[in-house]
Amino acid sequence: MIQKPTTTLHTIQKGKQSLQYETDIFIKESASIVGTKEGQGPLADLFDMVGSDDMFGCPNWEAAESTLQKDAVYMALGKAKLKPSDMRYIFAGDLLGQSIASSYGILNYEIPYFGLFGACSTCGESLSLGSMAICGGFADKVVCVTSSHFASAEKEFRFPLEYGNQRPLSATWTVTGSGAFVLTNSREKNEKVRARITGITTGVIQDYGLKDSMNMGACMAPAASNVIYQNFMDFDRSPKDYDKIITGDLGTVGQAALLELLRDQGFDIAEQHMDCGIEIYDAQKQDTHAGGSGCGCAATVLSAYVLKQIEEGIWKRVLFIPTGALLSKTSFNEGQNIPGIAHGVVLEHVS
Amino acid sequence: MIQKPTTTLHTIQKGKQSLQYETDIFIKESASIVGTKEGQGPLADLFDMVGSDDMFGCPNWEAAESTLQKDAVYMALGKAKLKPSDMRYIFAGDLLGQSIASSYGILNYEIPYFGLFGACSTCGESLSLGSMAICGGFADKVVCVTSSHFASAEKEFRFPLEYGNQRPLSATWTVTGSGAFVLTNSREKNEKVRARITGITTGVIQDYGLKDSMNMGACMAPAASNVIYQNFMDFDRSPKDYDKIITGDLGTVGQAALLELLRDQGFDIAEQHMDCGIEIYDAQKQDTHAGGSGCGCAATVLSAYVLKQIEEGIWKRVLFIPTGALLSKTSFNEGQNIPGIAHGVVLEHVS
Repeated sequence: MIQKPTTTLHTIQKGKQSLQYETDIFIKESASIVGTKEGQGPLADLFDMVGSDDMFGCPNWEAAESTLQKDAVYMALGKAKLKPSDMRYIFAGDLLGQSIASSYGILNYEIPYFGLFGACSTCGESLSLGSMAICGGFADKVVCVTSSHFASAEKEFRFPLEYGNQRPLSATWTVTGSGAFVLTNSREKNEKVRARITGITTGVIQDYGLKDSMNMGACMAPAASNVIYQNFMDFDRSPKDYDKIITGDLGTVGQAALLELLRDQGFDIAEQHMDCGIEIYDAQKQDTHAGGSGCGCAATVLSAYVLKQIEEGIWKRVLFIPTGALLSKTSFNEGQNIPGIAHGVVLEHVS
Repeated sequence: MIQKPTTTLHTIQKGKQSLQYETDIFIKESASIVGTKEGQGPLADLFDMVGSDDMFGCPNWEAAESTLQKDAVYMALGKAKLKPSDMRYIFAGDLLGQSIASSYGILNYEIPYFGLFGACSTCGESLSLGSMAICGGFADKVVCVTSSHFASAEKEFRFPLEYGNQRPLSATWTVTGSGAFVLTNSREKNEKVRARITGITTGVIQDYGLKDSMNMGACMAPAASNVIYQNFMDFDRSPKDYDKIITGDLGTVGQAALLELLRDQGFDIAEQHMDCGIEIYDAQKQDTHAGGSGCGCAATVLSAYVLKQIEEGIWKRVLFIPTGALLSKTSFNEGQNIPGIAHGVVLEHVS
């Protein structure tokens, strides 16, 4: 594949965290696959596939999560009528130590691979670096994929499932799911695409000294607040310039903290704010407490719900901000704080 | 900081894994910090700092590794006479679960952060994405940093140190160290820089079915072979077009496998090949068996030794290929294979 270089078609906004793209970067297609619990929630009918068993035919939870990534990429490529060999890069990540869900999930695709880690913000990180690769003329097509799995995450961060530990109301429930996104630099005349990426705001780690791994919403809210505030500054926008401002997995506790942090800085986003973690479950009926979380939460809700609204023109411009809590069981057991990171992506309707 | 967009100054080479940069991307400065064992090895005098104690004043091994990253970035910025706020992005990664060495190491810099995971290839991945950011006009200056620590890695991947486990001769010794690199898009007239990045070849995961975590050189050799072969194809080069072809941490066992794999494809790189893992220790005297390994191995040897040779013009053009083994203790205990990944970076002398 010989690809011609593009001419420069982007500008770096004032402020130091944002890029505004003036070239075409489309989310051509996407796919979402989720587990049984997500398939009983309010968004059930919107997901491309709901598993009938959270093992997805695999011998262990980690392999099940890898399968989610593999299948989400297959499905997104299929919908886009493209082959793995059409993809110049794959940007992938997950929550597990040494990103094993991604490594084993994508290895058979034989696509040049950039492994990413941004905790639950990784979906935003992958779309950020993927869109930079397209804008810079380094690629005409890339695929971005992220995942999480309730059972592999509980094992990785908390307790064995058999232990049956109690969870406080501030805790979130890790989403079993994966979302994949095919990005392109062009479309056929009048071709329907899911959305256009018109800018990004890259996060700075925020550490407010919190240590409670059962309240990750609060740990991540400052990171979301930083990115949203900086996005407003860099693009000279205010909340009303977005139809929705959508965080990844703050849950109800994190949402309250976010709204307060931004009010302190002079912005009220209560009307525009939505959180993927709050949308994906019916917390009362499903006993999920503060909401859903995980790399798979933002990715599946983006693919199934947010991009649907944008594609249909119900929302014209959305600021999408997956949020991540930077901890491991080792750092937690050693008494470290839990800092947060967030990655903002501006998504717009294409008519 | 308002930054003007650049005009397009790069081309994508034929073949699907490489980029050739035609714009200026310089490694302006770099720094290396290592532990006691590395400070007793053959390259001791070349490192910027050798710790007198592998705890580096910290309460645990993970915090010590974070300190290595923090100090390597400080030192590289200091040598470059730049401040953290001059950096538009930081690209960082390490070997620990959820990349905690990076998160806690760099958080006080408040630089927009892309977290990466490519196992021991992460140094190459960070230079690849960092150079793309510069070439695409997304940044005028970025910093790339990676690390590893013998004790945190043993705990993460193998056994507690107190267990005193036996190691086969094919095993490698994780390097305690961190290397940081400041990349820029311009230099003052006649300003000395360490090297210019003129291209990259991005790796595809290679899985040859190996499962022995005490022989990671063999697990990673196919990934290195793939990148080197693809680099020759994409750039229409052969071994003699490079003064050195330098892998990250294959060690002696992996080196033998690499040379054989490439001979099978018609290339003999025995004359040009060097491996950072073989260079950093005196295997006989230091009892390190097959050689050094870890994200910090390639990064510190690049900064201390490889870039010195390039800066002085002793080597004019080098292909640098850090290699990573994609495993976790969970995947290993579940009987998974150990696939490999590698990221190639073309480094040239600037006169």
